[in-house]
Amino acid sequence: MRTAAQNAELALLLEVAGTPKPGNVDRKREYADLRFEHFLAGAVGAQDGLEMADRADGPPVGEAFEQAVAGMRDQRGGNTQFGALLLLVPLVRAAARDDLTRSGASEVAEATTVTDAAGFYRAFDHVAVAVDDPPAEMDDLDVRRGSDAVPALYARELSLYDVMDRSADRDGVAREWTDGFERSFGAAQRLEALDCPMTDRVARVFLELLADEPDTFVAINHDEVTAKRVSERARAALDGDEDTDALAAEFVDRDINPGTTADITAAGLFIALERGLVV
Amino acid sequence: MRTAAQNAELALLLEVAGTPKPGNVDRKREYADLRFEHFLAGAVGAQDGLEMADRADGPPVGEAFEQAVAGMRDQRGGNTQFGALLLLVPLVRAAARDDLTRSGASEVAEATTVTDAAGFYRAFDHVAVAVDDPPAEMDDLDVRRGSDAVPALYARELSLYDVMDRSADRDGVAREWTDGFERSFGAAQRLEALDCPMTDRVARVFLELLADEPDTFVAINHDEVTAKRVSERARAALDGDEDTDALAAEFVDRDINPGTTADITAAGLFIALERGLVV
Repeated sequence: MRTAAQNAELALLLEVAGTPKPGNVDRKREYADLRFEHFLAGAVGAQDGLEMADRADGPPVGEAFEQAVAGMRDQRGGNTQFGALLLLVPLVRAAARDDLTRSGASEVAEATTVTDAAGFYRAFDHVAVAVDDPPAEMDDLDVRRGSDAVPALYARELSLYDVMDRSADRDGVAREWTDGFERSFGAAQRLEALDCPMTDRVARVFLELLADEPDTFVAINHDEVTAKRVSERARAALDGDEDTDALAAEFVDRDINPGTTADITAAGLFIALERGLVV
Repeated sequence: MRTAAQNAELALLLEVAGTPKPGNVDRKREYADLRFEHFLAGAVGAQDGLEMADRADGPPVGEAFEQAVAGMRDQRGGNTQFGALLLLVPLVRAAARDDLTRSGASEVAEATTVTDAAGFYRAFDHVAVAVDDPPAEMDDLDVRRGSDAVPALYARELSLYDVMDRSADRDGVAREWTDGFERSFGAAQRLEALDCPMTDRVARVFLELLADEPDTFVAINHDEVTAKRVSERARAALDGDEDTDALAAEFVDRDINPGTTADITAAGLFIALERGLVV
């Protein structure tokens, strides 16, 4: 019987193994400086942080997250699974409390404090993450300041939930935090419903999620028009009007990397594994 | 900093990610009933047993091995990493004792007792492993008897080292135990010396090991002539006289699976990671 922390790690591994996932690193596609093996090392490295999350009354989830990111970073590829871990850590905590439901996960998210927010900010010291500029009134809370922003966090008494709430309109991972992890649980249901090898399920669910909603990581790295167009083309691939492998090759070529969609796929995998999905 | 147990798990993951590895499951090749994802789950599942091995004065290595195999088995593919774990467990124990050298690993192997042998036999209760018939005088110690053979082990007072010694002439994993893990340490050196992405190094070292010595798992599942011919063709691939991808396709097709060579590759990866090889 795998622990929740182990299932979270396996979810990270199964996510990156799913192929084809247009634009993302998978078994058959990688970037010269971001390779498949970086994701393997990232998943293993996250273990200690995931174990901290996997205790009903363990350390604050923000600290578990920081530890997971610091461990993930022990490879040359840079940011491999930051967003996925930001979803997995509260879900693992909910599982440790025997309440891996949308409300159980929301409870974990809503119960966060400024200590959790500080852990989240410190995580940015370990790794460069592509993010948007914050609104002007949030400039002292730019996540890229990392731990330098912690005094401002305490001055404003913002919880990690508050921080997520302020980014929910432009970041799909933050939106999961404030939306009761709706798309993560939806992805789990689809993974359970499909009947094919696991890595094919992963690829299919990734494409469905991408077709359903523009990827906010693509919007940040390119623009919203590109993100919308990417989703339309994922829909076309689902409808059989585009070849998925060709789409995958093109997106990698154009450096279009729907990372948020991958993060939600990993969260869905974790939920499904915890509910008994057999590999 | 990954622990030795975590590096062992990562070694299992990097081994299966290396491609092309003619005949073995890798990122691009799998069998209908033995898939890439089974190896991912196997590696994660082995974690608890590897952690038992990763304590200088921890439980007997045979018990750590049994736990690792039981956890590995929590997936539908069956035996994914039995042989690799049989090499990794004593190496992890040597690392936990700050002596990951050929003599340090030999010390661990030679210090095993009948308790370790019992753990090894119980591991066969968890999974079907392809093995050769034992010599007639060893019939009561046929590993396929699993825990039923434990009374005979105690009656004969055989240590796990003794058991390995009795198979060393026909099993390449057992030979590592009695030979001071010569090929495992040799593989580590080669992995360190090559200068290319990690999964390409893995594929190269696998092919070199296969060319150097017939794979005993192939000899058991097919015959010695086949195993010898497989090594000759691996040599031809190294020399550029055979196309490695074509060879990989043919071997998968013929169900020729050089599993022992993969086990030694994984052991070499672990040693190299412990010595500081960066992913």
